[in-house]
Amino acid sequence: MSTLSLALALDFAGVAVFAASGALSAGRQRLDLLGVLVISVVTSLGGGTLRDLLLDRHPLFWITDTRYLLVSTLAALLTLLWVRRFPVPERALLLADALGLALFTIMGARIAARAGLGVPISMMMGAITGAAGGVIRDVLSNDVPLILRRDLYATASLAGAGVYLGLREALADPAPAIWAGLATVVALRLLAIHRGWRLPVFYWNDHR
Amino acid sequence: MSTLSLALALDFAGVAVFAASGALSAGRQRLDLLGVLVISVVTSLGGGTLRDLLLDRHPLFWITDTRYLLVSTLAALLTLLWVRRFPVPERALLLADALGLALFTIMGARIAARAGLGVPISMMMGAITGAAGGVIRDVLSNDVPLILRRDLYATASLAGAGVYLGLREALADPAPAIWAGLATVVALRLLAIHRGWRLPVFYWNDHR
Amino acid sequence: MSTLSLALALDFAGVAVFAASGALSAGRQRLDLLGVLVISVVTSLGGGTLRDLLLDRHPLFWITDTRYLLVSTLAALLTLLWVRRFPVPERALLLADALGLALFTIMGARIAARAGLGVPISMMMGAITGAAGGVIRDVLSNDVPLILRRDLYATASLAGAGVYLGLREALADPAPAIWAGLATVVALRLLAIHRGWRLPVFYWNDHR
Repeated sequence: MSTLSLALALDFAGVAVFAASGALSAGRQRLDLLGVLVISVVTSLGGGTLRDLLLDRHPLFWITDTRYLLVSTLAALLTLLWVRRFPVPERALLLADALGLALFTIMGARIAARAGLGVPISMMMGAITGAAGGVIRDVLSNDVPLILRRDLYATASLAGAGVYLGLREALADPAPAIWAGLATVVALRLLAIHRGWRLPVFYWNDHR
Repeated sequence: MSTLSLALALDFAGVAVFAASGALSAGRQRLDLLGVLVISVVTSLGGGTLRDLLLDRHPLFWITDTRYLLVSTLAALLTLLWVRRFPVPERALLLADALGLALFTIMGARIAARAGLGVPISMMMGAITGAAGGVIRDVLSNDVPLILRRDLYATASLAGAGVYLGLREALADPAPAIWAGLATVVALRLLAIHRGWRLPVFYWNDHR
Repeated sequence: MSTLSLALALDFAGVAVFAASGALSAGRQRLDLLGVLVISVVTSLGGGTLRDLLLDRHPLFWITDTRYLLVSTLAALLTLLWVRRFPVPERALLLADALGLALFTIMGARIAARAGLGVPISMMMGAITGAAGGVIRDVLSNDVPLILRRDLYATASLAGAGVYLGLREALADPAPAIWAGLATVVALRLLAIHRGWRLPVFYWNDHR
């Protein structure tokens, strides 16, 4: 598979899993059918949209290629049909979210690096692409965004982007760098969830 | 009246009713005078601003034509003067909101269609133009956005945009398509409010 | 010091004090270390980013000059180290916030005026640059933004931008206009805090 079609396939996979994660998250809030679809589409396309706005990439990816909208809507509808029949284990949601974070992080860092940006900004663009959709989902749902609370969420995204960007410079073939970056994000997230890994919490008290 | 001046008049009308709706909404939260104006301006200009950013239309409409800012501020101030003297029936707020949604939806879909975008993206741009201002208003007020809860809000917007875009292709004169699209949005919203029409609610339980 | 280097120094100072204010604000919410850095960076770079997106200024200032990201991160880390050893008086936070608001307001109005925009839009761009970072910080923290509640927050920003823009037209040397604008914002904010100055609160009751 060429790099371009690999990238597109991973991008669609990221859209699909984030749409599913958005639909499951919306399902906790008793929204109507279209409300669920709105949350799903925003969750799955929001991160890449913010990245493209910040990098001035126009037309936006989902305006250029309307299959993104189709993949997002279909994945949300299939998720709705699935959960009418089968139970949704919490694990499926967490795994979908880790996969989506990994896919969007690496695709975002790749776009920034190909645009000639340095490693710090490319890492940031990876994290924005990976996390911003979920942040918008949580803000719309009136929650404090998970990225700010959850164990190693932004950390996993930044670390995976760093691994990808480092290997990308070192290797001739881009595919291994992509896979290593993806694996880093998923592994860190799953280890954080299962072993309770987390960064130190910072806290200060107004009244000490 | 030419199509251009009809479009501009409808656009100003949309800005005015959304500014009034923003001022009334802010009035429930005990903000100071400037806070009310900020909410009004954001509610009335936010949807079109997001549309222009997504479509890369620059300079933004309210930077090109500062009358938008003037109409928005005047409408908010007149609303404040009005509610000091007269009661505000809940109906006036709902009707203003339905009118604003209709006007912004059709104007947004029209801009996208004239830019050569297809029907799905143009419908989405109509809904974004119509609903995003209210979403930003609700997020700033720390509420779950009404569009995600309220009876047929996004549905009315998408349906009206669809009617407009369909008739626009079929007819030579653009005015009837505009009026039919506006009527669709307002009628669906008011029927939803008065008859309690709504889409099925989707819900799943973590612990079944 | 030339105008350019004065502007850059003031810009970095604004980034540093807003990053400190963001870190202190995040410290109230028991976030992990990276969550604090995310809030700090968003608070310190968010206002200028929104301004640049609205004015279509690309590449964004922090993409062109990565020292912004460095200043923001270092200021946040130094703040974290400081509060581990020393108490943080509430006053320091309020003063940092007033200084940041002043610096960003004047720099934002200056950029808009130099781009040829009129006084009303330039004032608005000043207020957006000054206040939007804090608004995003509060929305992410699931709070009603301080700008909508706090005594003379947006008022001080708009007044300072007006003073700066007026003197800028009248004087040949830009530096006095900058200093007068900065002083206006800081003085109004501090007077509002210490003397309890505020605009009249607007309120209407659904059920009268």
